[in-house]
Order: sequence, then structure tokens, then C-alpha cells
Amino acid sequence: MATAPIKTTTTVLDLPDPLSLDCGRSLENVRIAYETYGELNAARDNAIFIAHALTGDHYVASPNPITGKPGWWLRMVGPGKPIDTDRFFVICANVLGSCMGSTGPASSGPDGVPYAMDFPVITIRDMVRGHVALLDALGIERLHSVVGGSMGGMQALSLAANFPDRTASALIIASTARHSAQNIAFHEVGRQAIMADPEWREGNYYGHSENAKKGGPEKGLAVARMAAHITYLSETGLTEKFGRNLQDRAEKTFGFDADFQVESYLRHQGLSFTDRFDANSYLYITRAMDYFDLAEEHGGILASAFAQTDARFCLISFDTDWLYPTAESRNIVHALNAAGAPVSFVELSAPFGHDSFLLDVPSLDRVIDGFLKQ
Amino acid sequence: MATAPIKTTTTVLDLPDPLSLDCGRSLENVRIAYETYGELNAARDNAIFIAHALTGDHYVASPNPITGKPGWWLRMVGPGKPIDTDRFFVICANVLGSCMGSTGPASSGPDGVPYAMDFPVITIRDMVRGHVALLDALGIERLHSVVGGSMGGMQALSLAANFPDRTASALIIASTARHSAQNIAFHEVGRQAIMADPEWREGNYYGHSENAKKGGPEKGLAVARMAAHITYLSETGLTEKFGRNLQDRAEKTFGFDADFQVESYLRHQGLSFTDRFDANSYLYITRAMDYFDLAEEHGGILASAFAQTDARFCLISFDTDWLYPTAESRNIVHALNAAGAPVSFVELSAPFGHDSFLLDVPSLDRVIDGFLKQ
Repeated sequence: MATAPIKTTTTVLDLPDPLSLDCGRSLENVRIAYETYGELNAARDNAIFIAHALTGDHYVASPNPITGKPGWWLRMVGPGKPIDTDRFFVICANVLGSCMGSTGPASSGPDGVPYAMDFPVITIRDMVRGHVALLDALGIERLHSVVGGSMGGMQALSLAANFPDRTASALIIASTARHSAQNIAFHEVGRQAIMADPEWREGNYYGHSENAKKGGPEKGLAVARMAAHITYLSETGLTEKFGRNLQDRAEKTFGFDADFQVESYLRHQGLSFTDRFDANSYLYITRAMDYFDLAEEHGGILASAFAQTDARFCLISFDTDWLYPTAESRNIVHALNAAGAPVSFVELSAPFGHDSFLLDVPSLDRVIDGFLKQ
Repeated sequence: MATAPIKTTTTVLDLPDPLSLDCGRSLENVRIAYETYGELNAARDNAIFIAHALTGDHYVASPNPITGKPGWWLRMVGPGKPIDTDRFFVICANVLGSCMGSTGPASSGPDGVPYAMDFPVITIRDMVRGHVALLDALGIERLHSVVGGSMGGMQALSLAANFPDRTASALIIASTARHSAQNIAFHEVGRQAIMADPEWREGNYYGHSENAKKGGPEKGLAVARMAAHITYLSETGLTEKFGRNLQDRAEKTFGFDADFQVESYLRHQGLSFTDRFDANSYLYITRAMDYFDLAEEHGGILASAFAQTDARFCLISFDTDWLYPTAESRNIVHALNAAGAPVSFVELSAPFGHDSFLLDVPSLDRVIDGFLKQ
């Protein structure tokens, strides 16, 4: 059996109508970049929408043309894999506000120059509005499932809650129904790091840089990424992977170079991120996540968010995830129970912290496979 | 009874001899700023040395002349308080490398200009060498106790281990015998935030700023403080204190102002910090903490660090402290047990995370009072 998906199509969709946003503004000329894998069946009922995380993209199972890296969930999506492209028509779209092909702050606005900070502040629900417009264009009335980890899980929750007819099931991994004070705090540190960088120029950095691929506040963005990256890993995982090991040296140097492997690793994470991501997109997407509070959207009662849906739900958390700990998933499960929705829930044991949903956790594969086959 | 300490003396000591450092360099003209409270008795055996934390100072129980705020441990130190100045002669010294009066990177070097990054990289043990030189000058052979929380606990451990004749007991609160990969990672984010700020100027910012109190990389330092501050608080504490409450507004603004109280709070923490702290000192002191590994200093076996001491030990941790969690204290207790040292250990329940050692935790007062009275 081939390891590559049997069919890959990268496409952009220019939405025919303006997108009405939660902030009250309407966004014209919205473009959605997406990939599909597998074939839509005649009944058009075998589609699975995969929603990506903060810094993700639509290259879920095909090489990312910018980084050259394999698709970010290639281990999960493909022929015979848990999200089986022999059976399902798999769609993954770059979220509104991002920088990988869909409309975001780096896109040109009506005046022909990049929106920058004139881009409207968007919400998770706005991203989902974009996804639903894509489903409309693809002629898909109702998904077999919407699947997402982290911010992808927020989109899956939002789609099931706000467009209850559009999916038969939702699979939410390592996610939350609302950003906590600590979640907001970490994002605010990242935003302040970006906005403190004089190269940010109040967001108007596009075209200003001479020596950088994307230009702009690369140092601030790298710091933001470093801070966020720590939250994606577990303390135990960091200790197992790096401990206090020194980087290519036998002794501490008594200086400020990256003496420790964990320092070198973090610096690399920060620097490599700036090659592929737009700083303003980082501001806008973190803001959307901080604003996310599904209960608040529904009169302050989370169960009310699920009153209209007859979808099946599956919630998965990881025992070492301290960004969106198991208690957050359990909170959603309780609300789904109160709403009478069918839900299964499992906390998986994995050493990788929040990032477990992206990594080699065989029990995750089995749970996803089992849920989607129902 | 008066609430203020009965006797306060602020003094600076210019060390008569150069200080030999772990890096191999020798530092001349070292100045130690310190405060004392209470009276040294005739036997000179009632002295307690309090070691302060990363951004602390020697104003442990007297007003800080820079911020105008009360002493940082006024609730613990004074007449009739757990660290009783009616009974003990209490000493608190600003650590080497800091910026509150003791020699650090902002001090003038031999050439009359600030050391900046020519200041030697120091260690926790180097800080303790400065403390011991102060004890020598004060004619104190042996402390009744050395007491410290967080980085202060590291100094207390280091003093007891490396100068075993100099203290009869050591009280270590919310601390660790070595910085973990996650601890190093958070500090590295802070250092990178400072060094990414163009105002840092490779450390040579002194005298360059026109409109700032201290000048230098204030934005970077504020980001560093924000990131660190999150680690000092518990997730539960943040949720209880701020949750998703909005700051002086009824609705989200769909912008990048501090909509949430936690954002406003963090920004304030960052900005107010730059008024009182030197960015290069932050680099040096975080580096000293990252380098701290008491076992490594003693052949890789933590118990060996305590082979020479006959001091009594008391370890205190907090159940919500995720920066230096209880497991780190327990690790020290096991080593002390292996070394045959007398040790008591308690994990206290408090909602404030790592910062619990500075806050209103009555059970902490009782444990400290009981230990020091023995």
C-alpha cells in the first residue's frame, strides 16, 4: 500500500458573498485555501473536516510547500489510516486570519495594500463561518465528522454548536470550551513580545524588511513562539528529552550562549517559526482563541450551546497536557451530558503534554479510528 | 506593640578582599548592601540570614526607597513575628549581580564605566560567598539559621552545603536543588526577550536612554517579567482572581487593548518592574539560577552536598507551586535523609502558586516560627 494519500488537491475558494463577522464588520473577497484527500461519495455524506491548530495549515497530509515538511497529521490521515482517505473525503482549510493562503492581515484589503491591523478582529466562530461557506461551495450539507485538536477542537465545538445541522459527529482533542486566565496570560505575553519589537511598526511592516523572508518583528515573534512552545510540552517530557544536558560542550561556558540543549532547542523553535508565520496573523489568531467562550455565546450556559445538535461527540484529553488539562474536556462532557448529547470521553496517557495530539500516541489512533467507524 | 521593626540599619560593606568566583575570575571592589534588624547578642549566636529571591532586595522588613512599598516580608519579620527581631539579629543582603546596592553589571568596573556584559557570570554559590564575607565582617561565625524562599532557598542550601560550619539550621521554602529543563526554558524566554530589544545594545545601554528612569531594554524586560510572573501564580489562583473578567468594560472591544483583567494585570506587572530592576541583572541572576545544580557541585550525588553539615533543615513546599513543585523539595529531603541530616518537611496547601511564600499563608508563619524556636 502506498504511504502517500491517493489523491491530493490544493485549491483556493473565493467566497462569492461577504462574510459577516462577530465584531459586526463584514469581510469582502474572502479567500479560503484548502486541501482535500480521497473522494466524495455519491451521497455526499462521507466528508470529514479537519480543523487545524493556531499555527497550523491545510497541509494535513501533503508536504508543506513552504517548509518542505510532511503533512502535519500524515500519521493520522491517509489510506488505511485512522482518518481513512480510502473511505472518507477529507477536507482541511487554512483558517481565516492565518497566512497560509486564506485571507488574513497580510492579505490585500480593498485599497490594494495589506490589511495589517485594519483586519477585523475575528473569532473562532468567524473561522467556522468560513469553513461552512467552503462546505456550501463543495455541496456538502452534512459532514460525517468535524475533527480537531487544540484550536481545531474549538472550531469543531463551535461548528457543532452553531451549525448543528452541518455535522453528524464531532471529535475534540486536547481542547477547551473557553480560554482560561492562564491561557490568556500566555497569549498576551506573546502579543506583547511582538508589539514590543520596533520592527512591528504598529503592524505595518509588510514590504519593509530587506533581509528577511517575511520581514517584520521576527525577534518578537520568535520570543512569542518560544513562550508558547513551553506550554505545549510537559515538564516531564522536557526533563526526559533534555534534562540539564549541555549542548555540544562538556562544561558550562559561564556566558549567555545556549549552554543547555533546551535553550538551543527553544531558540531553534523560535527562529524557524518566523520563516513560516506572519506576526500579525499570530496576534489575530491568539486573540480569537482568547475570546473563545462557547458558554458565553449561548447565554452563559455551556449545555445550551449543544441544545440544537444531534451530533455524536468524542472528547479526548491527555494526562500531561497542562495547557488544556483534562478538567477542561470533562467540563465539556458534563455540558453534553446535560444537553442529552451522545458523548464518549477518554483521557489518554502520553508523555508529550499538549502536543501529544500531534505525536506518536497509538492509543489516540485507535480511539479516532473507532469513533469515525461508528 | 509597634508594627515596625525596633531597629533598622541600612549599610553597605566594601569587601576588603577580591571575591573568587566559580567561573575562575576574581571580582575586586565588591560592595554588599544589606539591612539588619534587632540586636546581635553577646554570644553572637542569634543571627538569622534571610536570602532573597530573583528580583528581591535587602528591604525585607523596611520600606523600599525606590518603590516606597513596605518590606517584602514585613509580615514575617519584626517584633513578635515568626522571624522575631526581639529575639534574633536579622540580616538581609542584596545578592551579588543584582542592582539594589550590591555589585552587579550596572556597577562601575575597574575602568570606571559599568561592567555591563563584562561582568562575570556568577553562580548561586558566588552569591553565598558574598554573604559569608558579610558574616565575616559582622563577626558572625555561625548563624542560628539561614532562611530563603525560591532563589533564597537555593542560597540557603548552598550555604549549608558549602560552608557547613556557618549555620546551625537552614529553612528552605518553595525551592529546588537544581533548575529543571522547564525552569531553564522559561528563563531563556525572558533573556531572549531582553536581548531581542534593540535598546539592549549588547548590554551597553547605561546612560543611553533619555526618557526612562533606568533606560535600556524596558520593553524586553517587561515581556520577560510577564512570562516569569505567570509561572509564579497557579492556574487556579489566576482563575479565582481574574477568570475571564473584562477590564473596566462591559463588552469585548474586538481589538488588542487589554480587554481582560488578566492582561491589564500582567502589563502592569511588566511595566512596573522596569522601574525598579536592571535588565542586565535579570540576565545574570536568571543565569545563576539556571546553572544551579547542587548535586553537580558535589560529584553528582545530592546527599554528598550535605555530608559535612550538622545543621538542622526544614523544607516547605506549596501544593499549587508548579515552578518548584513539591517533588523538588522531596528530592532534597531524600538526600538529607541519605546524608543523615535532621530534616522536617511539610507541603502546605495555599492557592497562590509559587508566590505563596510571600503571601498570607498562616500555616507558613506557624511552621517558620516553630522551626526557628527549636
